[in-house]
Amino acid sequence: MSNNTEIVLGVDIGGTTTTVGFTDKAGNMIAETVMPTHAEQHITAYLPRLYATIDALRAPLQASHTWIATGIGAPNGNYFKGTVENPPNLQWGGVIPLCEIFEQQYKVPSFLTNDANAAAIGEMKFGVAQDMKDFILLTLGTGLGSGIVVNGELVYGHTGFAGELGHSTVNYDGRLCGCGRRGCLETYVSVTGIRRTVSKLLADSLVHSELRNISQNDLTGEMITNAALQGDKIALEAFEYTGRIFGMKLAEFSVFTSPEAFVLFGGLARAKDLLLQPTLKYMEANMFAPFHGTVKILFSALQDKNAAVLGASALAWHELEKRKRKM
Amino acid sequence: MSNNTEIVLGVDIGGTTTTVGFTDKAGNMIAETVMPTHAEQHITAYLPRLYATIDALRAPLQASHTWIATGIGAPNGNYFKGTVENPPNLQWGGVIPLCEIFEQQYKVPSFLTNDANAAAIGEMKFGVAQDMKDFILLTLGTGLGSGIVVNGELVYGHTGFAGELGHSTVNYDGRLCGCGRRGCLETYVSVTGIRRTVSKLLADSLVHSELRNISQNDLTGEMITNAALQGDKIALEAFEYTGRIFGMKLAEFSVFTSPEAFVLFGGLARAKDLLLQPTLKYMEANMFAPFHGTVKILFSALQDKNAAVLGASALAWHELEKRKRKM
Repeated sequence: MSNNTEIVLGVDIGGTTTTVGFTDKAGNMIAETVMPTHAEQHITAYLPRLYATIDALRAPLQASHTWIATGIGAPNGNYFKGTVENPPNLQWGGVIPLCEIFEQQYKVPSFLTNDANAAAIGEMKFGVAQDMKDFILLTLGTGLGSGIVVNGELVYGHTGFAGELGHSTVNYDGRLCGCGRRGCLETYVSVTGIRRTVSKLLADSLVHSELRNISQNDLTGEMITNAALQGDKIALEAFEYTGRIFGMKLAEFSVFTSPEAFVLFGGLARAKDLLLQPTLKYMEANMFAPFHGTVKILFSALQDKNAAVLGASALAWHELEKRKRKM
Repeated sequence: MSNNTEIVLGVDIGGTTTTVGFTDKAGNMIAETVMPTHAEQHITAYLPRLYATIDALRAPLQASHTWIATGIGAPNGNYFKGTVENPPNLQWGGVIPLCEIFEQQYKVPSFLTNDANAAAIGEMKFGVAQDMKDFILLTLGTGLGSGIVVNGELVYGHTGFAGELGHSTVNYDGRLCGCGRRGCLETYVSVTGIRRTVSKLLADSLVHSELRNISQNDLTGEMITNAALQGDKIALEAFEYTGRIFGMKLAEFSVFTSPEAFVLFGGLARAKDLLLQPTLKYMEANMFAPFHGTVKILFSALQDKNAAVLGASALAWHELEKRKRKM
């Protein structure tokens, strides 16, 4: 046994960058770095670069810290199998047994889940959900990801892929989704979704808006937020429209697992009150009566920290604790 | 310690009848009886009758069996608090701490949940879900009740009332529901729901149907099933309509907890293939691609047994096991 500080490695694999960091049990980031993912590379080219990055980060810590586990957040991550399975945004080739690969390389237990699940565990261990046993984390970015916590545990489901709330349906004749179906929630409630909503509102109305000068591709969530804060009617209506759909679906999700809170994360969550006010209003207006007033909407406490790496680290700490409880 | 056979009491409280039975650990029904609930009575009139019924059932068993726990299935049952909270179909008056009352009366641990949750535990311990860790039980009777199992445990949620899938929304402008909102799933998919669908189809079409001779109030699920089996076009279309809505919602529920199966129970489930075929077809047609082929639809194995009492008993056995694991 070492009396050094125990640390875990958190790895967040995104389509653009991969972030790695070592954290202690309290969630303090001891060391952290970022490298480009190069999504077009095969896994055999990606791994040596990742090892080199981790080894360089670890070297100065080796004397004073003991690395005891690794947590990985990755797109299409299968918690049960420890695999990354054909993520559409990485050209790794097939099903990659990433946990096994990491355990062979570094000889410490490794755990893996998708990014939204890792973020949910991060909020439970280090964020706004520290006292909660039942909550749902929603990441509102390019798409809408979700991590569902029931009785203090992530819901993985029979397949390991539970919690795809971005692909619950708002309107069966609605907007085409990247998944091939129509009307998925993420086509309305996400950064991409609200941009599509702005285009719809620009088509439907004649009201003056500075957003008429910006192409859909150039438009960012931040631009829509800023326009709304300056009173732009289209931008304000876009938040009302988004919040209406979001609130109605949150009411519906509530009858499923009766969460204590929805925790919002990601680019669109930065709009704060602009999104929160209509969402709360429509959630309560559509809530099944016995659940009125039982569900909060909160914003992530880790949004401006290294949430993804913290989440991946939190997964490792959480799994280590589960193993201890079973012993 | 006694070397008598250990048994638990299962109590199923319905609006019309209350069924009580003693079962052993394998789910064998040792003794069982039924009494009228008299829903119009206050709890203070109900309890003495219930005690007398239980005592009479128990008397011949006392020499050879040891009663070790009680499980109760009741409308609006709150698992966390052991209370029955203002069920619309019982005039008991307010919030009744039924577990506490039972423990004082009989000096054995008592557990309580709602009917659908009890049925789910029954299927997990004694029915078709014995090897499953993730499934959803749906009772299709007057309404649509549900019990959600995740990782081998019932989902109770923050309020204790999780799993109200009958009040998920099909159509925000749809049929008025008893809950005061519109378009809830149970207004379409339940015995009451398919009767309303028959009325709608009789209104919309001119096709010949023997169902035109039966009032909505006189119409039963069994009549619709029998008519469909004889080729009645309205009855057949009613099952297609019901299965379409049901299948679409089951696909949506699947992205939530990724269950291994939906287990169907209750009056409408007796229609078997008439309901199953369209439901399966529309579930798969609307399924999020990664979940294609991962979700079964099964029928309860306890439908024709004393499922409600078995479920309540299963709750007691399940909770006793959980206590043992924690010791």
